[in-house]
Amino acid sequence: MAAVHPFVPQDLILPDYVPIMLPQLTILGIYGAASVLVITFVWILSGMFPKISKADKVLMCWWVFTGFTHMFLEGYFVFTPEFYKQKSPTYLAEVWKEYSKGDSRYIGRDSTVVAIEVITILLEGPACLLAAYAIATRKVYSHLLQIAVSLGQLYGTALYFITSYLDGDNFSASPYYYYSYYIFANSFWVWIPSLIVIRSWKKLCAAARIQDRTKTKSR
Amino acid sequence: MAAVHPFVPQDLILPDYVPIMLPQLTILGIYGAASVLVITFVWILSGMFPKISKADKVLMCWWVFTGFTHMFLEGYFVFTPEFYKQKSPTYLAEVWKEYSKGDSRYIGRDSTVVAIEVITILLEGPACLLAAYAIATRKVYSHLLQIAVSLGQLYGTALYFITSYLDGDNFSASPYYYYSYYIFANSFWVWIPSLIVIRSWKKLCAAARIQDRTKTKSR
Repeated sequence: MAAVHPFVPQDLILPDYVPIMLPQLTILGIYGAASVLVITFVWILSGMFPKISKADKVLMCWWVFTGFTHMFLEGYFVFTPEFYKQKSPTYLAEVWKEYSKGDSRYIGRDSTVVAIEVITILLEGPACLLAAYAIATRKVYSHLLQIAVSLGQLYGTALYFITSYLDGDNFSASPYYYYSYYIFANSFWVWIPSLIVIRSWKKLCAAARIQDRTKTKSR
Repeated sequence: MAAVHPFVPQDLILPDYVPIMLPQLTILGIYGAASVLVITFVWILSGMFPKISKADKVLMCWWVFTGFTHMFLEGYFVFTPEFYKQKSPTYLAEVWKEYSKGDSRYIGRDSTVVAIEVITILLEGPACLLAAYAIATRKVYSHLLQIAVSLGQLYGTALYFITSYLDGDNFSASPYYYYSYYIFANSFWVWIPSLIVIRSWKKLCAAARIQDRTKTKSR
């Protein structure tokens, strides 16, 4: 017997599904407020490091924000397969029930989505925090790491969209959720990593050019 | 009515399946011979470029070999969904029927596998050839591109293994095919990209260190 739920496709079987308890505004509001807090904290903290440009401060905020999102939000999803059965209101469970209105593959535990999230939380999450640290302390591998993590995010997001398309692109409860959650929310992990790859790529090519010149001179 | 086929799981439905026509030795032999030909040709060609180290020559051979594998072998798979219905023996169709003994998700057209292959043939295939060209002509972006493509290959291979694991890891016709095709053949796309990432990462960090010193000097 399929439980009644608001997700599409409606024949998705979710035994013991407990309906969403928190209002949408509360769920999004807490995520928004937590993000603003984290970003403000990192912005202030980044000012304490010497010779940090404004662009680098913005990037540190991004890396900590996306790292925390990967590790806490997505980490909860990976390690709590039965989150939709939680009987007392658990904020992170509510987030994933709410997001699943935009893509039911989350609540339906599609293996591609889980596999992408496993890579994201285990490798990319910690690497995001390392990127913020590398920027702050001006490590030589800073741009390389930023490119590597951004490419990983882009690969994951591309695969996320392509598999949905191949499987019929019918996992949203309504066009509203499709465009606001599935398209708009994910778009940040398309354009921000793209900009970072372009920026760091240019910086590293400039470094390689200087090395070439130094080599030529020393001959 | 399910056609009789040698793949696992046996309830996989492959309408109008045409059995493998070429012997295993022929299928693998042609791939091996073609690879040796390509590698020999690239090795000779690479010798014509000035100041190419032996390591760079080996890398050029790898990049052209893997690029051709992505574009021709995997390209055929993506663009020929009904390859297993081919009535006359088509070499590339035979390859995929043979490989599917190691992983039936190919012949079953699992959407994760198709999505990984779409990214591989459209982005990584051409990027592999560009990497060989960048090494030969000593472009400044050579190491960066090699890292980017290798990370893409590693991401794809990781996802390929993780999704299979999550879906029950039961897609091989026998342990022989599991270990020879699924594990051994794919392992090349684990250890070779890993070595390339480590090598190019070190080279780029060395370049960044020189840039740092140059900046400090010019102050």
